[in-house]
Amino acid sequence: MAGVDKDMLAQFLLRMGDNTLILGHRVSEWCGHSPVLEEDIALANTALDLLGQTQLWLGYAAEVMGDGKTADDLAFLRDAWDFRNLLLVELPNGDFGQTLMRQFLFDAFHSVLLGRLLQSSDQSVREIAEKASKEVAYHVERSADTVVGLGDGTEESHARMQAALDLLWPYVGEMFASDDIDRAMAAAGVAPDPAGLRDEYDALVGKVMAEATLSIPDSSFAHKGGRTGATHTEHLGHLLCHMQWLQRAYPGANW
Amino acid sequence: MAGVDKDMLAQFLLRMGDNTLILGHRVSEWCGHSPVLEEDIALANTALDLLGQTQLWLGYAAEVMGDGKTADDLAFLRDAWDFRNLLLVELPNGDFGQTLMRQFLFDAFHSVLLGRLLQSSDQSVREIAEKASKEVAYHVERSADTVVGLGDGTEESHARMQAALDLLWPYVGEMFASDDIDRAMAAAGVAPDPAGLRDEYDALVGKVMAEATLSIPDSSFAHKGGRTGATHTEHLGHLLCHMQWLQRAYPGANW
Repeated sequence: MAGVDKDMLAQFLLRMGDNTLILGHRVSEWCGHSPVLEEDIALANTALDLLGQTQLWLGYAAEVMGDGKTADDLAFLRDAWDFRNLLLVELPNGDFGQTLMRQFLFDAFHSVLLGRLLQSSDQSVREIAEKASKEVAYHVERSADTVVGLGDGTEESHARMQAALDLLWPYVGEMFASDDIDRAMAAAGVAPDPAGLRDEYDALVGKVMAEATLSIPDSSFAHKGGRTGATHTEHLGHLLCHMQWLQRAYPGANW
Repeated sequence: MAGVDKDMLAQFLLRMGDNTLILGHRVSEWCGHSPVLEEDIALANTALDLLGQTQLWLGYAAEVMGDGKTADDLAFLRDAWDFRNLLLVELPNGDFGQTLMRQFLFDAFHSVLLGRLLQSSDQSVREIAEKASKEVAYHVERSADTVVGLGDGTEESHARMQAALDLLWPYVGEMFASDDIDRAMAAAGVAPDPAGLRDEYDALVGKVMAEATLSIPDSSFAHKGGRTGATHTEHLGHLLCHMQWLQRAYPGANW
């Protein structure tokens, strides 16, 4: 990988792996609490897929960093300010509809991005994307179906899905807010500049929301700071308390 | 303190200090979230009182244990199974009424117990009780007033307080479930056998609930296991995740 700044590549990989780690943890919180068994298992499987992808992204990030850390170290021993996930994925689950709306808004982005990463100039990125994109193709199909089913459902479910979309939409813009790291990755052919993915994303999301009879808010305001690490919501700290507890209380514990 | 088993004395002190620690933490969760400023400050002050008492109880417990640990170590580095608090105090806050009902049910017990500890044969216990009983006299007055005000209030507030009493009553019996440790403390004059405090407690609680127009459930079933450490609710583990986070993530951190 001539010409790629190692620190920037590591930051890119943290962004990928932190998204899947934090969303995977959030989704796993539903385990045993979903409205029906089928959904419980589906959500648990989604969480497992995301955590499996996390192992690959953070494992590669640790390799690039080259300071002897592992994917587990990165997952369990960093504090909030070192996480690089989108704010969207750290938001609380809310009700089932809100969880699935968040899932779809992320899945749509994730599937478009992974599609491009199949052509990455970095072999490891390409290999991870090949595995992940198959899983995420299924995630986005499933979350889109649920958004349509609940959006174009009863009065109650429609109202909840619209409320979820209104709540979460201001967290979508961050996905496409490029910075120097993105430009460096794009220049090296490692990953696309996310700003260039917006049209494809809007087309996909627009189509699904139309089917779901939901209105996308007419605002381009975007909460930012998660993927750059400038700021996170207070929810991330609480999530880390739970997610990291075991390794913090029992350092080096193994199964 | 001739004739007192040190291990048993330490367990008694943990029971006292864990009650105030865990309830103090729970109450502190309201900080910034109470319905009105006056209540927010009152709850924060109650939490501070309880945490101050914790420092004394756990400080003395650590001294009795004599293995070089401090009150901070006991508060922040034990895991759930080593806690000796009543299950009542680890239950989630619920709504404001439920929090105050839990507070009154504990305050009533706490004030009766501390009154007896003023005559403890153990000088340190006596001194802690002298300080704590003044604070708790105020706590119980305040929580009783609130239980009466909300119980004998609107239809909505009455219903919520009755629901809180129904929910929490099965956690009252544990306060009076004596074991060998209690009998040893009573024999040495360190503390009363809690079983002997039940009549006084019932008289106080009965009077307040009558004023509050609330009905005490006609059941003597009691959840147990907290004060013996046999079992805790799952809520304690979640509470510890948050309460102990800083010392777990940054061992030995100081202000």
